[in-house]
Amino acid sequence: MTEEKHCLFTIFGATGDLAKRKLYPSLFRLYKKKEKQKHFAVIGTARRPWTDDFYRQVVIESISELVENNEEQAIYFASHFYYQSHDAKDTEHYITLKKLGEKLKKTYQTNGNQIFYLAMAPHFFGSIVSHLKSQRILTKKGFERLIIEKPFGSNLKTATILNKEITKSFPEKDIFRIDHYLGKEMIQNISAVRFGNLVFEALWNKEYINNVQITFAESIGVEERAEYYETSGALRDMVQNHILQVLSLLAMEAPKRFEEKEIRQEKIKALQAIRQYSEEEALKNFIPGQYAAGDFDGEHFLGYCEEQGVAENSTTETFVAGKFFIDNERWQGVPFYVRTGKRLTEKGTRINIIFKKVLENLFDEQSNSMASPNVLTIYIQPTEGFSLLLNGKEVGKGFKLAPLKLQYRHDATILSNSAEAYEKLILDVLNGKRANFSHWDEVARSWELIDVIRNAWDNNLKEIPKYKVHTMGPYEALELLKENGCHWEWKPDEWYIQRGKL
Amino acid sequence: MTEEKHCLFTIFGATGDLAKRKLYPSLFRLYKKKEKQKHFAVIGTARRPWTDDFYRQVVIESISELVENNEEQAIYFASHFYYQSHDAKDTEHYITLKKLGEKLKKTYQTNGNQIFYLAMAPHFFGSIVSHLKSQRILTKKGFERLIIEKPFGSNLKTATILNKEITKSFPEKDIFRIDHYLGKEMIQNISAVRFGNLVFEALWNKEYINNVQITFAESIGVEERAEYYETSGALRDMVQNHILQVLSLLAMEAPKRFEEKEIRQEKIKALQAIRQYSEEEALKNFIPGQYAAGDFDGEHFLGYCEEQGVAENSTTETFVAGKFFIDNERWQGVPFYVRTGKRLTEKGTRINIIFKKVLENLFDEQSNSMASPNVLTIYIQPTEGFSLLLNGKEVGKGFKLAPLKLQYRHDATILSNSAEAYEKLILDVLNGKRANFSHWDEVARSWELIDVIRNAWDNNLKEIPKYKVHTMGPYEALELLKENGCHWEWKPDEWYIQRGKL
Repeated sequence: MTEEKHCLFTIFGATGDLAKRKLYPSLFRLYKKKEKQKHFAVIGTARRPWTDDFYRQVVIESISELVENNEEQAIYFASHFYYQSHDAKDTEHYITLKKLGEKLKKTYQTNGNQIFYLAMAPHFFGSIVSHLKSQRILTKKGFERLIIEKPFGSNLKTATILNKEITKSFPEKDIFRIDHYLGKEMIQNISAVRFGNLVFEALWNKEYINNVQITFAESIGVEERAEYYETSGALRDMVQNHILQVLSLLAMEAPKRFEEKEIRQEKIKALQAIRQYSEEEALKNFIPGQYAAGDFDGEHFLGYCEEQGVAENSTTETFVAGKFFIDNERWQGVPFYVRTGKRLTEKGTRINIIFKKVLENLFDEQSNSMASPNVLTIYIQPTEGFSLLLNGKEVGKGFKLAPLKLQYRHDATILSNSAEAYEKLILDVLNGKRANFSHWDEVARSWELIDVIRNAWDNNLKEIPKYKVHTMGPYEALELLKENGCHWEWKPDEWYIQRGKL
Repeated sequence: MTEEKHCLFTIFGATGDLAKRKLYPSLFRLYKKKEKQKHFAVIGTARRPWTDDFYRQVVIESISELVENNEEQAIYFASHFYYQSHDAKDTEHYITLKKLGEKLKKTYQTNGNQIFYLAMAPHFFGSIVSHLKSQRILTKKGFERLIIEKPFGSNLKTATILNKEITKSFPEKDIFRIDHYLGKEMIQNISAVRFGNLVFEALWNKEYINNVQITFAESIGVEERAEYYETSGALRDMVQNHILQVLSLLAMEAPKRFEEKEIRQEKIKALQAIRQYSEEEALKNFIPGQYAAGDFDGEHFLGYCEEQGVAENSTTETFVAGKFFIDNERWQGVPFYVRTGKRLTEKGTRINIIFKKVLENLFDEQSNSMASPNVLTIYIQPTEGFSLLLNGKEVGKGFKLAPLKLQYRHDATILSNSAEAYEKLILDVLNGKRANFSHWDEVARSWELIDVIRNAWDNNLKEIPKYKVHTMGPYEALELLKENGCHWEWKPDEWYIQRGKL
């Protein structure tokens, strides 16, 4: 527990799904942990004409699982919430907002500290931010910070325009671009495991690592996100942000000190060292896919193009697999494989570090058995933990090697009491800690890398490879690794062998 | 299953504890696994005047837990056993033995193959072996192998005399000196883990390893072994054989191929590279201890000197802790700590490899937390498995390092079906595989290392440090590590802090 940070929150998109599922529960958890007590207020805005009372009911409902029979606490918490119907493009509305803000500043002694949370459609971002300045809602009386949800642009050009608009009102140091994966325990653990352990630190380079694999797999389809997803696809939705962030954490050099600025510098350097593909190279190294209609386990699943809100002939990718190279001393020649998709075999985010094999296989002749490569797996979600795949002696007479897996799982009770990603990230913003947010330089470099892939597909692919429900994507995603003599460590080729090519 | 090796076994010490607890059950397990079927016979000898029938009853009783409702099988198995009352020093008795052997050779078509098992007091070893030759029980018609239990001498001089006597009858290649630890799964696993895994193979040297710790702990006292133990003590009973064998497996260079001869060469080279202490150095680096009378958990335990068969003023050590150095390129300056004892806190045989800390502790400042060194633990018994102690991020907000342990345990069902050490070793002898037995060069070098410690104590120590029941030995055993800035990884100083110095 630290001293309460006095603050007024203004949430744009207060009636939305994200606000209800993540923001209100996170604010309530912080409240219960005494990170916020008296000196805070929340203004919720959106187009709908809600009353304060109705809004507070919505807030109370959204935190119902956390209330634990203390309804008075919930009601007191919700009493800090105020609703303001709002049209993001209408200047008049910002005047009303300013007045409400000034009133609440006095009532709750928020000391002029303000956090603005943009949890809504991205085309409003620019307008909101410029109004905040022009209507003098920003007063420089306290800290004024902006939290902005993805997507940050849809390519380098639009992102640059957006960033220019925003930085007219907020300096980079006050812009907190959310990548909620960066709030996850196991993502934050990557640096601890890399730099805190000699057994990995000493081996974390091209001499000892054969390849790195990052998988973000979902088993669900597009669900209700079709409208957004049609404009995005898996490449922009997942690779540009989450996957490249994870990759930079895995690949970066050790920062001089484990502090925000030094970490950011090294992450950016890693992103810059990623090989900039030509369109031709991008086409070879990145494979899109789209889930087809199909049956699994007695259930029928719609194909992506049949989903509500999706164009019949949509070529939006629901899957992408690809290969990055990092052209620096540490990683020269080591492929970083990434993949993500919907309707895959299993939900799970995992990192696999595949080490090289031992130089000489002593046991070959004697035992007629091969040493497999060692694999360090970092389980991000839903499982959280680590495993290390080793070779041991098979139990029994004779001497045959057999794989054995050292395992560690986070304790479920510790986890259930631990902060959820959004809670940690909001607390970071309150405390002005920026290490777990994306800097503009990272965003810009990521778009540079992504744009060429997007363009390569748009300019060259006539159709998109389809894949079966409950598989790990199209066959091409397996082929991608074969040319380097690798295979996916998690859910490798079995699905293909068992279920056949589409 | 391999083709049955035809063979006649002659067991000297057939009425003894080892024969009943280990040899008969192991032979029966081999029989059930069809490693032996028809063409085998066993002659049991000892002084007592037993009949064949009585002997067979003893054999059946000793295997009762393995019979599984198939009594006919047990009876058939036992029908291969013959008893011959025998005085090891009486030439006449070997003539009888020879006749019986010749008869059984015909009956069971053992093809002249013979295995002689010396499972009795060591002062008979010489006499038995020379009679086997002089009375032409050895005929060179088939393979003729000698299995010999510890102790192999009580110092380099007596061991050399014994070895000379034995090698008059058997060449080194036919002598199988049992060290039953070498038959254990997890000891055999040491080489698999070392040489089969890049993550360890690349780090297995003085650059990355801070120190190595080998603990053989017993919770029981001397029990019924006082007569032998008074002439031996922990140093000769455990360090000269088991501990130095384990140490040489941990320290040896990679053999050119994973085969008997190459492995042995490397083990001997490692033993030879162990620093040969002067008496003065030995005194400083090796600590004896003896358990005192005391209470623990409401129970009273006798001191060693009060145990039946032990001299009142015995200075026999029931505990030893010490430090070896290996003066070669790989290990220069890395202490190998060893300890063993009776009446310790817990029964367990474990190896701890303590790696160095990461060079720079990035997290020091930021997180106010230190990275602990990584520790690879090999659990030999009763637990069988591995663990790797790592540093991770503590669950929660902020960034603090916390230890986490990756674990692997052998599956209990696999283990219960797996061969016991003696079974594997007897099978090795049948197949002429010598990798898991001690070569004379290893025995001789071990005695060289042990003799100087023994002499240093005998010539200098006026009294032996006592230690409390249910502790990890005398306080001096902790001090031993402090001068190198180390501590015992398993059961470290807590017992001392909690329970106080004796």
